[in-house]
Amino acid sequence: GGGGGGGCMWRCNVKLKSSAADLVTETDQRVEKFLIMTIRRRFPQHRFIGEESIGAGEHLELTDSPTWIIDPIDGTVNFVHRFPFVAVSIAFTVNKRTEFGIVYSCVDNKLFCAQRGQGAFLNGVPLHASGQEDVSRCVVVTEIGAERDDEALTTVTTNICRLLKLPVHGVRALGTAAVDMCQVASGAADVYYHIGMHCWDIAASALIVQEAGGIVMDTDGAEFDMMSRRVLAASSSAVASRIAQVIRTFPCRRDDEDPCLGQLSL
Amino acid sequence: GGGGGGGCMWRCNVKLKSSAADLVTETDQRVEKFLIMTIRRRFPQHRFIGEESIGAGEHLELTDSPTWIIDPIDGTVNFVHRFPFVAVSIAFTVNKRTEFGIVYSCVDNKLFCAQRGQGAFLNGVPLHASGQEDVSRCVVVTEIGAERDDEALTTVTTNICRLLKLPVHGVRALGTAAVDMCQVASGAADVYYHIGMHCWDIAASALIVQEAGGIVMDTDGAEFDMMSRRVLAASSSAVASRIAQVIRTFPCRRDDEDPCLGQLSL
Repeated sequence: GGGGGGGCMWRCNVKLKSSAADLVTETDQRVEKFLIMTIRRRFPQHRFIGEESIGAGEHLELTDSPTWIIDPIDGTVNFVHRFPFVAVSIAFTVNKRTEFGIVYSCVDNKLFCAQRGQGAFLNGVPLHASGQEDVSRCVVVTEIGAERDDEALTTVTTNICRLLKLPVHGVRALGTAAVDMCQVASGAADVYYHIGMHCWDIAASALIVQEAGGIVMDTDGAEFDMMSRRVLAASSSAVASRIAQVIRTFPCRRDDEDPCLGQLSL
Repeated sequence: GGGGGGGCMWRCNVKLKSSAADLVTETDQRVEKFLIMTIRRRFPQHRFIGEESIGAGEHLELTDSPTWIIDPIDGTVNFVHRFPFVAVSIAFTVNKRTEFGIVYSCVDNKLFCAQRGQGAFLNGVPLHASGQEDVSRCVVVTEIGAERDDEALTTVTTNICRLLKLPVHGVRALGTAAVDMCQVASGAADVYYHIGMHCWDIAASALIVQEAGGIVMDTDGAEFDMMSRRVLAASSSAVASRIAQVIRTFPCRRDDEDPCLGQLSL
């Protein structure tokens, strides 16, 4: 569902969350409620981490229990503006490990999915990362994100400048982390990095990149941690390491340590 | 033509033009030659300005004669990487004024077109710019372009930083000026600006934006001049003026004054 649909979905009420760039629509909340209710009927013991549930006051904690991590509309700003890239992202974890991930890019009807050890697919066709090892031949996708304080903005734009000087072939931004990451899985881009996103934005697409043969790590080169608010996906270890050397980070409170996450007014 | 096609088109020979970001493929040249030969058979007196013709040594001069301005593949870097946004752009001018423009986004099969005074259309459906007048509610599309010298890079990234502080809702980059501009025509984005592109990148889409009710001007607020290497397209005069106040430019030799344009090695 969602995103590509009729006029009534677009005439949505828009509420402001943490900043002008962090929009919430009734549709986000309705899609998440629908997904959670549908899954819960079948799996009443499973837990849920969802962008809107967390916003509504639930504490975010990833446990060993079977857990569904849901972003009902990744790319809410795009959705509000009808910029044609929005996705539903669903990941399923057991023992804190993602077992499968689904990203549905609604407007262009692309279903990306992966199951651990079984490969990654786009509408049923196997996906392969590019394998590119030369950073100067890379297309980089990134997002500026919703942060608008001076330190974050300076870091974000300085990172872009440093990458362009490597040089890289180009920098792209579609406005949805989930679809951006899937460009690396499909080999259309060689790098995606982002500082400041949340676990539900990239939990599913991280597995899709890995199963397509790509590398996923923290932007500082450490092991990927979906709660850290930082992700770096790349075509190869060589490219991932080089990018990790170049980009700088800014402080973001971890998803599982942020007391404000449960207190956003919706 | 081109872009979404079969495997053999993708296995192209890639040559380097002015920088790592400015790639040329045999396919560019073949598409342009095909278009020019086909049009010339019907209109033997018409003139042509094409990205690849210019590269091959012809002098660039827009005269009062009927002239076809052609970009055979806008988004060549995307094309080489299979990043899924590439377009064919064709504009037709008489007395230096664009009479019609066509942008065909190949991978997603979207045909944008406009005729002076007759409106703009996407696959036959009328297009309308958003009309947004509040810059803080705008989605901005831009491109970093192929320039990699310090002044250009600093200006480009500083402009992005200044826009984000206005604030705007977000910044996007698809990697093709023609398709980026059409996002403004369709109301999906509210602003597009670019410094350093060439006339063939935006001749067609500038008319498409205007016919969709949008505003097109120079990034310094002056009248639009397709040879100036600068363009600002927006949802409204208010937004265009505000953006023109904020962004800074860097020196680019005009398309019709650049002695090097005819001397690129192909």
